[in-house]
Amino acid sequence: MSISSKFLDALTPSAIRSITGQIRAKAAQGIEIYSFAGGLPDSNLFPVKELKDITDKVLETEGGDAIQYAASDGYDPLRNELVGLMKKKFSVENISYKNIFITSGSQQGLNYISKGLIEEGDIVVCETPTYVGAIDSIKSYGPRIVGIPMDNDGINLDKLEDVLKQYKDKVKFIYLIPDFQNPSGRCMSIEKRKKIVELAEQYDTYIYEDAPYSLISFTNQVMPAIKSFDKYDRVIYAGSFSKTIAPGIRVAWIVADEESIQKLIYMKMRDDLQVNNIAQRQVYGYLHNYDFDAHLRLINSTYMKRRDVMLQAVKDYFPKSTKVVKPEGGLFMWLEFDKDIDTLKMFDFVFSKNIAYVPGTFFCVGEQGLNTMRLNFATLHSDIIREKMKEFGLLIQEYLNG
Amino acid sequence: MSISSKFLDALTPSAIRSITGQIRAKAAQGIEIYSFAGGLPDSNLFPVKELKDITDKVLETEGGDAIQYAASDGYDPLRNELVGLMKKKFSVENISYKNIFITSGSQQGLNYISKGLIEEGDIVVCETPTYVGAIDSIKSYGPRIVGIPMDNDGINLDKLEDVLKQYKDKVKFIYLIPDFQNPSGRCMSIEKRKKIVELAEQYDTYIYEDAPYSLISFTNQVMPAIKSFDKYDRVIYAGSFSKTIAPGIRVAWIVADEESIQKLIYMKMRDDLQVNNIAQRQVYGYLHNYDFDAHLRLINSTYMKRRDVMLQAVKDYFPKSTKVVKPEGGLFMWLEFDKDIDTLKMFDFVFSKNIAYVPGTFFCVGEQGLNTMRLNFATLHSDIIREKMKEFGLLIQEYLNG
Repeated sequence: MSISSKFLDALTPSAIRSITGQIRAKAAQGIEIYSFAGGLPDSNLFPVKELKDITDKVLETEGGDAIQYAASDGYDPLRNELVGLMKKKFSVENISYKNIFITSGSQQGLNYISKGLIEEGDIVVCETPTYVGAIDSIKSYGPRIVGIPMDNDGINLDKLEDVLKQYKDKVKFIYLIPDFQNPSGRCMSIEKRKKIVELAEQYDTYIYEDAPYSLISFTNQVMPAIKSFDKYDRVIYAGSFSKTIAPGIRVAWIVADEESIQKLIYMKMRDDLQVNNIAQRQVYGYLHNYDFDAHLRLINSTYMKRRDVMLQAVKDYFPKSTKVVKPEGGLFMWLEFDKDIDTLKMFDFVFSKNIAYVPGTFFCVGEQGLNTMRLNFATLHSDIIREKMKEFGLLIQEYLNG
Repeated sequence: MSISSKFLDALTPSAIRSITGQIRAKAAQGIEIYSFAGGLPDSNLFPVKELKDITDKVLETEGGDAIQYAASDGYDPLRNELVGLMKKKFSVENISYKNIFITSGSQQGLNYISKGLIEEGDIVVCETPTYVGAIDSIKSYGPRIVGIPMDNDGINLDKLEDVLKQYKDKVKFIYLIPDFQNPSGRCMSIEKRKKIVELAEQYDTYIYEDAPYSLISFTNQVMPAIKSFDKYDRVIYAGSFSKTIAPGIRVAWIVADEESIQKLIYMKMRDDLQVNNIAQRQVYGYLHNYDFDAHLRLINSTYMKRRDVMLQAVKDYFPKSTKVVKPEGGLFMWLEFDKDIDTLKMFDFVFSKNIAYVPGTFFCVGEQGLNTMRLNFATLHSDIIREKMKEFGLLIQEYLNG
């Protein structure tokens, strides 16, 4: 008899991983899919040679000690390195390594916060649209999710305050992606960053600042983190190397006050003891001994070019009325079609021609978003983007002409 | 304001990791501790050179694809390899890679099962003494823990059945370490393995078979897993490479029926997406291309020698009335002193002389075990064990003479 519980039996595959599964199934049959669907960075840009050299050196100099059991807090040299990074890149000052907690990918950090904080009857507030993987993770702890619409400069603060008022003492945290948001590509303005910290303090709630895309900035300028305006220990910041170094090594970090970090460490002692040692040393070695900024410039210029190609293709081949916010960073472009175009219904048709995307409704909370779509412009080479986006545009025409 | 909840505020450091913390604190002051306390295998025995070569080859041949996002199920070549291992070593037949789920260490597997299954009012049954880290993890989900005393051939089945009867439909699972148990070093007999599967079926509960030490066998003979007698999908088997390859790479696995595995995969999609890719390839490469059996023979002969040295020292220098079960594998020796010796009270005295152990009471559930102690004989070299165990014995004399 399989294991069973109310909790387990309610779980389904996450929507995006289910599309990934369909793509893998076709790939297994030898069919090539051109996917704008996933959240994948381009694996050709990962610093493979550097990570190999670092690993060799670590194993040669540290030997078996490098792969012995280690502390649940994380690798201290990496934690110290991240103190510097938080200051230099995101203007987060006055922290020490004790404010840094290493996680096995940033989804794990969100999972810890959700597991740690959410109690029966709680509400979690998020932007809509937002990263569906986060919502799936948060939802598994049973809160009600309330989505707040976004303006071009981030979450609508008036509507947010209405909700905070309405559900006073019930909102456990506000989940935000302030930089090059997944899926919309939008950035939150500095003014809103300052104000939202005040709102969190005023309404006795927390902000979970999910910042995996912050360094993928096409102008190479990076906004100060919401955390940098946090005088009240109200912001839990989550950074990740999945988009800037490589996702398969699973290294991310949380920044919070020391007491909160200590509680997360106690959770980790129960959940999975510690993060992979070599991965932590790979990231430390890379940040400490290589030119991370040069690497970021390379990634960013490459992705910017691909964004330009995709944007041009949308203009040239997609329905004239398609609305798009030009993303200044990140991996994603968000399209809004005329109300009568249902991208969820259209998916099977386009996928049958071996092109994949994510229907925007998957990212929407408390609204339908049936006429929206998320495209990843980072994974594929510009030439393929150009060719396949043209094909995609023509497929949409064909679909609309019935 | 730090994050806070009933759940978070109840967490404390796990008892053993707290001792580890005290050791690290002394080490930071330059004081060398001779620790029989931790669960550490000897890092000098880790196949460092082989893992380095495998990593080099993986990164050279697969490039960035090796560190891209990957499936939540685990790396399929490793899953397939483990099907063979389960059959060859543990007589578990009729499974495919779909019955295997890769976890980031075996504590993660236990955490998933606890999180997935435990509901309000549930009971989890375990051996007493047992691995305190497991109990800490299980307890964080709120069940009542009931400990069942052990005989020399494993958990006492009569007492177990009494509890299963008494709390019918409330016992969510039975947590067992059948091979070279932590902390007692005992093995469960084949007869008991067969019977306990029948009990699980009869009382509609599950067995969590935690088997990290099974291959650390000084006779190099390995018992068939409880899972091998499971006709009913009542056994969730958890294996780990932490003791046989290296713990810092965090690779372990669960074996269960396909439907249960699928639910665990859905949990992983929410919790942390996937296990580190390189670590999975390191283990796969090691099992597939190197002589794992020869490596096991080396580890086992080394640890057996250290066990012998420790056993002799206990006989020579510890109080004459000390009882010890000679462990035929694993990492631990379990000592039982006269009732009037309180090893918890004695700890500070011994630790002040820079020797560490774990007071046995930490491992006990529903009994005190104040006169017991767990010693790890695997971490330190035999010469040091000989010298420090003598010193330890004299310290106990000194303590007892007050």
